[in-house]
Amino acid sequence: MLKNHIRPDDGLDKESRKLETKRLQTLLTAQQPALREAKLPVVVLVEGWAAAGKGGLINKLISDIDPRFSSVFSLDADRRDADRYPFLYPFFSALPENGKMLFMDGGWMEAAVRDRLCGGLSKEEYRQRILSVNRFERQLRDNGYLVLKLFLHISEKEQAKRQKGLLADKETAWRVSDYDRRQNREYDRFRKAYEEFMTATGDVFPWHVVDGSAGKRNYDGFRLLTEAIAASLAAGKICGEPFEAAFAMAPTPRLRDVDLSPRLEEKEYRRELDALQERISRLHNMIYRKRIPVVVCFEGWDAAGKGGSIRRLAYPLDPRGFETWPISSPEPHELARHYLWRFWTRLPRSGHVAIFDRTWYGRVMVERIEGFCSEKDWQRAYNEINEFEADLADWGAVILKFWLHIDQETQLQRFTERQNTPEKQWKITEEDWRNREKWPRYEEAVDEMLEKTSTEAAPWHIIESNDKLYARIKVMRTVAETLEKALKDRD
Amino acid sequence: MLKNHIRPDDGLDKESRKLETKRLQTLLTAQQPALREAKLPVVVLVEGWAAAGKGGLINKLISDIDPRFSSVFSLDADRRDADRYPFLYPFFSALPENGKMLFMDGGWMEAAVRDRLCGGLSKEEYRQRILSVNRFERQLRDNGYLVLKLFLHISEKEQAKRQKGLLADKETAWRVSDYDRRQNREYDRFRKAYEEFMTATGDVFPWHVVDGSAGKRNYDGFRLLTEAIAASLAAGKICGEPFEAAFAMAPTPRLRDVDLSPRLEEKEYRRELDALQERISRLHNMIYRKRIPVVVCFEGWDAAGKGGSIRRLAYPLDPRGFETWPISSPEPHELARHYLWRFWTRLPRSGHVAIFDRTWYGRVMVERIEGFCSEKDWQRAYNEINEFEADLADWGAVILKFWLHIDQETQLQRFTERQNTPEKQWKITEEDWRNREKWPRYEEAVDEMLEKTSTEAAPWHIIESNDKLYARIKVMRTVAETLEKALKDRD
Repeated sequence: MLKNHIRPDDGLDKESRKLETKRLQTLLTAQQPALREAKLPVVVLVEGWAAAGKGGLINKLISDIDPRFSSVFSLDADRRDADRYPFLYPFFSALPENGKMLFMDGGWMEAAVRDRLCGGLSKEEYRQRILSVNRFERQLRDNGYLVLKLFLHISEKEQAKRQKGLLADKETAWRVSDYDRRQNREYDRFRKAYEEFMTATGDVFPWHVVDGSAGKRNYDGFRLLTEAIAASLAAGKICGEPFEAAFAMAPTPRLRDVDLSPRLEEKEYRRELDALQERISRLHNMIYRKRIPVVVCFEGWDAAGKGGSIRRLAYPLDPRGFETWPISSPEPHELARHYLWRFWTRLPRSGHVAIFDRTWYGRVMVERIEGFCSEKDWQRAYNEINEFEADLADWGAVILKFWLHIDQETQLQRFTERQNTPEKQWKITEEDWRNREKWPRYEEAVDEMLEKTSTEAAPWHIIESNDKLYARIKVMRTVAETLEKALKDRD
Repeated sequence: MLKNHIRPDDGLDKESRKLETKRLQTLLTAQQPALREAKLPVVVLVEGWAAAGKGGLINKLISDIDPRFSSVFSLDADRRDADRYPFLYPFFSALPENGKMLFMDGGWMEAAVRDRLCGGLSKEEYRQRILSVNRFERQLRDNGYLVLKLFLHISEKEQAKRQKGLLADKETAWRVSDYDRRQNREYDRFRKAYEEFMTATGDVFPWHVVDGSAGKRNYDGFRLLTEAIAASLAAGKICGEPFEAAFAMAPTPRLRDVDLSPRLEEKEYRRELDALQERISRLHNMIYRKRIPVVVCFEGWDAAGKGGSIRRLAYPLDPRGFETWPISSPEPHELARHYLWRFWTRLPRSGHVAIFDRTWYGRVMVERIEGFCSEKDWQRAYNEINEFEADLADWGAVILKFWLHIDQETQLQRFTERQNTPEKQWKITEEDWRNREKWPRYEEAVDEMLEKTSTEAAPWHIIESNDKLYARIKVMRTVAETLEKALKDRD
């Protein structure tokens, strides 16, 4: 691919190419209002050899774009702490808002290839990354993103020459890292790796190999970008595939079949609570030391007791090692991005526990029922969520998902009690009563969610919550047992 | 202070204290709706000796608070990268929203004392920190925050005993750091430093020394917190002092006295632009290597040419080392915090350049004129902004503030041209025309802003922008000269 890379002659002499580049630059500027109008988010991934001119090309591309609508990602600067987060974390976190453009100076290709060739990534782990990258790109496409992928190519000889030039000047010498030099020393090995990566990840968005000489790369950059934007604007949003069971599933019961009678006496509850809190406190120490990330998800009917369960669970945790994320309706900057963005950016560092009070499952519940997203969007979300959780599991995370289940009668009792207790009135709103009327539709949505997203790596746990004491203890026991198993598996 | 610390006898036996603690915990829960109603943000700073039980107290305090309304900050976990940011950065970034509570497991006391005793902070630098902490607390108070400051005290002997206990168990031994052991070895030295810090920072919010034994610290924690909340709710918002010139000022002209005639020929412009871009590119390399942070602020009349100037300035910058922040009206989570929060959290890492397209000066312009904040709020903001910029300067930042100035006639021409050019129409809105009508009021506000916030450490540069070419070159030349001077001063 790169070895035999011969650019088709663009038939332009230097002067015409310059004029043509200028014309395309003006066209790119002119496309901006339409891009914003269409709310099209654009990611321009610029990969390629060290010293091929990635930074220079990006500066040229953004030079006429209003800074309010563009941002730049830099692999070296923005991927610090990479070992404490999943592979895709820095890329997902950098996603632009609708109608804006992100330019990436190195991204998931360089990160994957570097880790494989120099970072001790095994063949199997690398294969996993490729899979993850392909899913990521598909999710971006299905959620309306345009991704343009460029590879800036220069020959071994040209790279050596440019590096020598940079090294000769003390102001620029620091830009040539040991890694860059290694790339040149082992040029063929890197070339092969780049080629393989491009072959393995060219299906969703194609790769474009661009000549790294200054005039040609600028011309090609503007040409490919304006073409891609024009095509995207003409095509409109692509919506992607419906659910398919791509992961090993864990069976869950239908809600109506859940026996809600389990109860616990106060005395028994106290005893168990004390023992479990001590056990979880010890376990938290251990997962902190072993740097295992833990993601705990709470979903359930209104007034099922999420808050109370979360407080009991959090109590024995060391505050230096956990965060609680209450999730309500998204803010504008969140709404303007992939719906999983606000969860990706709230992931715990390895060794930490993140507790989500409501989660990404809002997509297939409230957003589905209230029509906040299209049917295709929520249908597709089952796959996307399973893939998200698979990325977390591959990273090493322990994932716990709780559905706190009560019956309609219990909810009514608790709503009424809240209404009648002055210091609890803030907990109950008109919306809660409205949601209650939609119980059958929610039940249908929850059943479908449990069926389609209870994977072996991230199974749902149904918590019988008509009795709060029983529910809290079951949550904590499930956490303790799951952490113990995870620690044992990794010993 | 600590040496002679004798807790006044609370007159309670163990059992009564436990009952009383329980009562206060219920009271704290009952205060929550009022706290949210009053939009009171609360910061509970828990400082104290290693092993004094800070984490345990915090867990107890939050155990009955809805996790949607509370969060926990941990000095050790949340202050990574501390050397790349100003001292206050992690604390400002952690501020809670209105109506929510933040619990801090260590904060500005521990960070300052540790850096002084173990991190090579000079006496003068330490003095500067104390100053900065006092300003910070005053800003918090004036912006409606309640800060409760606790110091958990245990004796040298008790600390040694607790550390020994932790070290004896391999599950807890890792919790005792070298630093913690040093604290015990040099107990008197630390005691003195803590005492001095408390004496120097007790004016805005007082310090409360709390006995670190489990029963007493919990009782005192709940007691002090519920008392402070009750007092704050009763007192309402305090608004603080009007402007005082606490910093050395740099003179600026009044807008009406600015000569807007300077012009530049296209040919001259091209020549200068090329030379300046090369110069700035080289300078960016140098400040990157020397880790000097640079903050560039663009303000100016609508259509004065901010976007064009920013693009030319950004063009020679290495994308790995700069960010552009377009600032528009704050989002809900930003509006719910100190108005400088969204700028603190966007500061560049040291060695990076952050370009702000509109800035915190919105407080004394649009927010003043549209009534988005009270008169006391914007009056006070001149001090607060000067203090903010002084913190940046003390950190080592180069601060460049540009006011792009045009006359009304030029604005009208540009508005009309935008209106008549299809691809520029998005740039002009009804609001721009409305703002134009408020020109005299804006001019008054800008004149006052220039007068009160042009400090020697962060002076305003007026850019005559009737001629765009002249304006762009003047901006770039000012940047180049300022960076050159900064590099020279630090050699």
